[in-house]
Amino acid sequence: MKSHTHYLWFETKRRQEIIDITGEVETQLKQSGIREGMALVSAMHISASVFVNDHESGLWHDILHWLEHTVAPWDPSLYRHNETGEDNAAAHLRSLTMGHEVIVPVTAGKLDLGPWQRVFYGEWDGQRRKRVIIKILGE
Amino acid sequence: MKSHTHYLWFETKRRQEIIDITGEVETQLKQSGIREGMALVSAMHISASVFVNDHESGLWHDILHWLEHTVAPWDPSLYRHNETGEDNAAAHLRSLTMGHEVIVPVTAGKLDLGPWQRVFYGEWDGQRRKRVIIKILGE
Amino acid sequence: MKSHTHYLWFETKRRQEIIDITGEVETQLKQSGIREGMALVSAMHISASVFVNDHESGLWHDILHWLEHTVAPWDPSLYRHNETGEDNAAAHLRSLTMGHEVIVPVTAGKLDLGPWQRVFYGEWDGQRRKRVIIKILGE
Repeated sequence: MKSHTHYLWFETKRRQEIIDITGEVETQLKQSGIREGMALVSAMHISASVFVNDHESGLWHDILHWLEHTVAPWDPSLYRHNETGEDNAAAHLRSLTMGHEVIVPVTAGKLDLGPWQRVFYGEWDGQRRKRVIIKILGE
Repeated sequence: MKSHTHYLWFETKRRQEIIDITGEVETQLKQSGIREGMALVSAMHISASVFVNDHESGLWHDILHWLEHTVAPWDPSLYRHNETGEDNAAAHLRSLTMGHEVIVPVTAGKLDLGPWQRVFYGEWDGQRRKRVIIKILGE
Repeated sequence: MKSHTHYLWFETKRRQEIIDITGEVETQLKQSGIREGMALVSAMHISASVFVNDHESGLWHDILHWLEHTVAPWDPSLYRHNETGEDNAAAHLRSLTMGHEVIVPVTAGKLDLGPWQRVFYGEWDGQRRKRVIIKILGE
């Protein structure tokens, strides 16, 4: 069994942002030399997500709108977490809803994604340095 | 380390549908010969889910009702993704909420599921050919 | 490839409860002797979650409040699953929203978590014996 580990760093300009990281995962897969296995891509923060979906800017807008208006409004006064001095409880709930990690299958040396599937980093409380781990296991 | 990969195809009659695929995953596990490991079961589309829950038709009805009335109503006019000519933005948001993949542990040659756990394919935009990957790693 | 499997048992006093299980996962990792790999931590029940987030009691309160008021109210009369004699349909929908499993990367013999990340068991229908599986694969 081989394993390969790499960390991606982000510091977004906006507080919420969606970033396509499929290319970075592909680069790490090539460096790993792994042909059959699984690639874990996981946010190392509790106010961010990693998810698989569509590279379409209208949909990214829909996701951000939905997170604010349906899943968890930002307004810190709604949350007890606010009493710690943090204002990002909504970012935690958004991370829990969308998930913080994905496993991408690796087949014949490639990410075995469907035709429209791409891997994204979802930053729900940005403008500071944050990390994602890519860990690939296989042979 | 052994690996085993198989693709399931679906073409549902209804646009939304929940299908128990536990038997298919068990069949692939037997074919793999793997005794200890992990089975990834992952939708290869961005408008579908794979999830673990209960084989109970009342609950399946509750899930479909909840997706429409709480998570993301279908009405395409609510979403910018609509402007691309697609009408399925809600299916994307439903996939993001319920997840598109699960990892089932494999112990002593069996899917190590709890007493009521079953693996399901959730089709949120069907009536066309779509795929799920089963990838089992272990020994 | 090595594998290590362990089951945690819970019987919570309250019907809904959030329990930090990071220490238990670390203990199992030490016992496994695995240095590079992945640790699957997965609820074996369909009315519970395993998730990664923050060890902060205000946030735990926020999560429980959000599950009741935004995600899925408990009131059994809202759900068809109720007709089976069960009253816990909401617990199923909460499990589907928050997820029932996480994969924690293992690097250099340690859980490779970010600075604030902890692993939690989320009990959404407790006061009875339930289980979580920890399964670690690697070398």
